[in-house]
Amino acid sequence: MLTKEKIAEKFQSLQDDICQQLEQVDGSSFKEDLWERPGGGGGRTRIIMGNHIEKGGVNFSAVSGELPEKISKALQLDKCDFFATGVSIVLHPSNPFVPIIHMNVRYFEMDNGIWWFGGGIDLTPHYINPKDAYFFHTKLKETCDKYHSEYYSKFKQWADDYFYIKHRKETRGIGGIFFDRLSEDSDISKKDRFEFVWDVGNTFCPVYLELLNRNKDRNYLQEHKEWQLLRRGRYVEFNLVWDKGTKFGLDTDGRTESILMSLPATANWVYDYHPEKDSPEKFTLNHLKKGLDWINYTG
Amino acid sequence: MLTKEKIAEKFQSLQDDICQQLEQVDGSSFKEDLWERPGGGGGRTRIIMGNHIEKGGVNFSAVSGELPEKISKALQLDKCDFFATGVSIVLHPSNPFVPIIHMNVRYFEMDNGIWWFGGGIDLTPHYINPKDAYFFHTKLKETCDKYHSEYYSKFKQWADDYFYIKHRKETRGIGGIFFDRLSEDSDISKKDRFEFVWDVGNTFCPVYLELLNRNKDRNYLQEHKEWQLLRRGRYVEFNLVWDKGTKFGLDTDGRTESILMSLPATANWVYDYHPEKDSPEKFTLNHLKKGLDWINYTG
Repeated sequence: MLTKEKIAEKFQSLQDDICQQLEQVDGSSFKEDLWERPGGGGGRTRIIMGNHIEKGGVNFSAVSGELPEKISKALQLDKCDFFATGVSIVLHPSNPFVPIIHMNVRYFEMDNGIWWFGGGIDLTPHYINPKDAYFFHTKLKETCDKYHSEYYSKFKQWADDYFYIKHRKETRGIGGIFFDRLSEDSDISKKDRFEFVWDVGNTFCPVYLELLNRNKDRNYLQEHKEWQLLRRGRYVEFNLVWDKGTKFGLDTDGRTESILMSLPATANWVYDYHPEKDSPEKFTLNHLKKGLDWINYTG
Repeated sequence: MLTKEKIAEKFQSLQDDICQQLEQVDGSSFKEDLWERPGGGGGRTRIIMGNHIEKGGVNFSAVSGELPEKISKALQLDKCDFFATGVSIVLHPSNPFVPIIHMNVRYFEMDNGIWWFGGGIDLTPHYINPKDAYFFHTKLKETCDKYHSEYYSKFKQWADDYFYIKHRKETRGIGGIFFDRLSEDSDISKKDRFEFVWDVGNTFCPVYLELLNRNKDRNYLQEHKEWQLLRRGRYVEFNLVWDKGTKFGLDTDGRTESILMSLPATANWVYDYHPEKDSPEKFTLNHLKKGLDWINYTG
């Protein structure tokens, strides 16, 4: 049976596997912090400050106890006990031609029997490269298509809507997939749901390591680095202003350093900066839009 | 009579006066952007990237029209027309021994006759210096005491509560004064309220220019700069996660570049950084607390 303990164990092994693969490619090591949650459970926060990944985190947590009031209210539920486990990743690369990536898989259940899975992967290139975008979205679609013919289109749209920086009228990056509250129904068992989520988790390494290897040794100039720092500023704005997960965590007394591992080592802000016409920076800005079909993109 | 037009005119002259004084001390010039609000009114955003002020903004705005629904709901009001005008300042200095400062004065009225003033000044030193803190709070108290013996203690506490980074369990800096919804009552006329707010606005220059002159030529090391960048990261966290003015602006389609002029040119994040025992950085952290009496501080 797929118990919550089993799911947490699998997620923990996913964290191990991903960290090991990243360490091999980066040639550096994660630093681990074990932490306990006063209300119940805890986690393993792993941080890398590496050769190619300037700053990144791969977090595992499995927390439990009484559902915080903010959450029960938001979910319109009475007081109850909950259990939540997940793996959450954000990597900020050094090279501006390597994209920022985020991945999350999570499972949530309450003692009233309600449960669901959520998660996703999304990519934030500092410089959008249609070939990389094609590769990224094709790989996500391949994973989705194994489970349901509509998953990719549905979850891609969800990502476009979720990773949107409203006050900038820009998407955070080129999207990816995002899903939440995947529970069982007549055709789909808990085991089916887990298998999909597990597959998403295991799509992370082959996809990101390919993008890292393609771009990590590309030469860049100071101007590329400066643009990267501005784009990181937007990443900070999204995470602190709009990301529901971050806000919930900070609001409900989560472990701040684990939540904010998503922030880059350095970010810049320049007042009212506009890239030049026909520049690669402008090309990127023009493509930070919802609804672009990167698999059939023709330019 | 103190009409809304008159208040806006006075605020605009305050912006002029402050910019002129800052330009003189900094030896550089503000860049001005005039903007219009689609719903009515507009503003003058002035940005400096100077010799001592690395990045700063002195904004004036006077906006009007139909009250955005988000605001009327938050204020539990029916649809109505509004008028709002104010001056808002954030300065991020280059030298880590010069504090970040924020000042705001504002006036709000609705067509149902309800009006109020709000505002405040607060200081965010990267390195807390009790002599500077004494000077800063003494000057604010002098201004407050001219109007009411309880203003300083009341508005200081309000600032401690408002400028609080809940997820860090730290105040943003050493506080200052903060007040909102100052309207008329049996003893206090609109003219009295304006005079107080006007005096707060005019306290900005003598206070900040003194702190700037005291510290702008102090020598500093790379380690001081690094600490400054981390503290700026906290400033970003406060403004994007907790500051009600920022969130309201971004939520109600305000002019993003004017709102986010409060962000520094560069900010850093280091995972789980703890300064050394007995260091000036640790001294600062230990004093980012509510309720400290900087006027009678004895160490």
